[in-house]
Amino acid sequence: MIFSYFYQKSELMKINGKHYHTIWVKESDPNTIQIIDQRFLPFEFKIQDLKTIEDAFYAIKDMWVRGAPLIGVTAAYGMYLGLLSLKKDGNLKEKIIGFANYLESSRPTAINLKFAVDFVLRKTKEAEYLEDKIKIAFETANQLKADEIENCRLIGEYGFPLIEKISKAKKGETVNILTHCNAGWLACVDYGTATAPLYLAHKKGIKIHVWVDETRPRNQGSRLTAFELEQEGIPHTVIADNTGGLLMQKGMVDMCIVGSDRTSANGDVANKIGTYLKALAASDNNIPFYVALPLSTIDFNMNDGINQIPIEQRDPEEVKYVEGWSNNKITKVRIMPENSQVANYGFDITPAKYVTALITEKRVCKATQKDIETLKK
Amino acid sequence: MIFSYFYQKSELMKINGKHYHTIWVKESDPNTIQIIDQRFLPFEFKIQDLKTIEDAFYAIKDMWVRGAPLIGVTAAYGMYLGLLSLKKDGNLKEKIIGFANYLESSRPTAINLKFAVDFVLRKTKEAEYLEDKIKIAFETANQLKADEIENCRLIGEYGFPLIEKISKAKKGETVNILTHCNAGWLACVDYGTATAPLYLAHKKGIKIHVWVDETRPRNQGSRLTAFELEQEGIPHTVIADNTGGLLMQKGMVDMCIVGSDRTSANGDVANKIGTYLKALAASDNNIPFYVALPLSTIDFNMNDGINQIPIEQRDPEEVKYVEGWSNNKITKVRIMPENSQVANYGFDITPAKYVTALITEKRVCKATQKDIETLKK
Repeated sequence: MIFSYFYQKSELMKINGKHYHTIWVKESDPNTIQIIDQRFLPFEFKIQDLKTIEDAFYAIKDMWVRGAPLIGVTAAYGMYLGLLSLKKDGNLKEKIIGFANYLESSRPTAINLKFAVDFVLRKTKEAEYLEDKIKIAFETANQLKADEIENCRLIGEYGFPLIEKISKAKKGETVNILTHCNAGWLACVDYGTATAPLYLAHKKGIKIHVWVDETRPRNQGSRLTAFELEQEGIPHTVIADNTGGLLMQKGMVDMCIVGSDRTSANGDVANKIGTYLKALAASDNNIPFYVALPLSTIDFNMNDGINQIPIEQRDPEEVKYVEGWSNNKITKVRIMPENSQVANYGFDITPAKYVTALITEKRVCKATQKDIETLKK
Repeated sequence: MIFSYFYQKSELMKINGKHYHTIWVKESDPNTIQIIDQRFLPFEFKIQDLKTIEDAFYAIKDMWVRGAPLIGVTAAYGMYLGLLSLKKDGNLKEKIIGFANYLESSRPTAINLKFAVDFVLRKTKEAEYLEDKIKIAFETANQLKADEIENCRLIGEYGFPLIEKISKAKKGETVNILTHCNAGWLACVDYGTATAPLYLAHKKGIKIHVWVDETRPRNQGSRLTAFELEQEGIPHTVIADNTGGLLMQKGMVDMCIVGSDRTSANGDVANKIGTYLKALAASDNNIPFYVALPLSTIDFNMNDGINQIPIEQRDPEEVKYVEGWSNNKITKVRIMPENSQVANYGFDITPAKYVTALITEKRVCKATQKDIETLKK
């Protein structure tokens, strides 16, 4: 297999025709990290500066950035920003561990967050003095970012043949792919996880059409995935989260691809709430259900995802109100009686038995303990 | 079994403490039918006059009224309003058939609509002259309304023991019941279908808590079911449609009860889009999944619901925009890029094998051809 296609193109992952990453070091000031503030998409395109570890913490917690891989990279830069704030050597070890604990508390489900923070922590231990630790944190965050890009590119290359095969079986007719939430480049740095095979298939001229679950309560599907696909010119249709079952019953879905926030070593997949329901419908209708993820999303220390992966509960207001565009501004509308109780769970767990395969940067892997173990570095 | 409880109480199904039906003949003018205009709930309480068959048609089509039983009753009154508009005898048969076809075209999935219209059609054939036909249509519509009330009351009585049994097994701890869309009294005339057993259980002092799927795209769950339950003082929690699977995984749901828009003679259940996904999750977690419906919802002439029940496609704008309350008025916000395609299917089909039982006004019945046949009048 030749992993060359994406590298030949420099104009990938665009907004209004210009290529972006989701996070980068500000060109004029390496002490500032910049991000696309995803709270405003697709209605407004805003770039924000992160100058402190608190900025990074709230960017993660309040979902200015989201998506397991991007959360990891942002937290790594957060460690760097934390170190930058220190004035002198002394108690460094304690302070850096404090930074790590602080950042890890921002969101509980995505394992990449812990992975990235621990990685920076470990690396910075290699130096004694603050100045060197800062330099190492910076380089490590940059490296993690570059790794995420490369991982997503490889996920695209490994996932692509799965789409190509269906396309051939359908004699070139459109391949209908359902995805949930946003596991696109906006959830990563570039290419995306679930979307990487889609982008590659599209660029190679395979006819695809994407069913985009709107993904309540925050509508990352209708707001972010639809936006990404529109910017890349990929045919797509937004649907209410309730719709996928019917489409699968009616033969209108050829495959599902989703991302993951944490996958246990036995293959249970934590992903945005609602994923499990689509996996059940895929299973009931004999439709392949793939999970695309970098290895940093796999929690090799956990053998029972259903019972062990922590499920984040978020602000009830996210369910009570829907945010959208009205009168040329972002507006929130309440969609229930003022006094109704609300619950807001962020994720669910898809049991391994409903996962056809994992698409990783190393290869396509069965969602079994045995096969997953072989991916361990 | 003594079917007495509901009749002892006159203050049932209240809005702001006052008892209402969803549809009634205007007291001061029997040529006018009045309805609660459900488009504005829970934010505003408005009553509308229906004076012509076109008023009835659009009240159904544009969902001023909705829910299979209520659609049926509204269509029956629509036939009456159509007849009222005729000035003299002559070509009556043809005109009345025209009225029936017109009303039946307002929404395709609910079988009650056809049932009610055909029933009025048949009854009016018994008279020769316009004046008598009008009288018959009026009485027939009133009778259908009374029947719907009685049916829902009986569904409550037959469904109640299913809740009571779980309550006893849990030693009086709260019974957690998940419902989808609105199969409450607002979908009927009084009591509701799926809600009738809930209301009865609550009134009999059994501790229940209801998980209310918000039910995108039109949010009948968060807007209507939550409103009903709040008005009756029943503990409930609104959740995004994506959430039910996780709750069932975590043992937080004891049973599901939903309504139906059409159920085929083999037990396949058409209901609001998303119902099928909850039935799959219930099955996967060994949770009973009940469908509460009057016999008028059963299509005894159809033996394959999955392939034969027509699925309504509605205006894409219902998905593209979310309607809610902002700045003291009903406001619509767009939740996706302006140019994204949208699909809006109204219903899905839950295969009979995932239905634990049907709760009807005659008895609790298995979702099998054999048992359903015995319900045929």
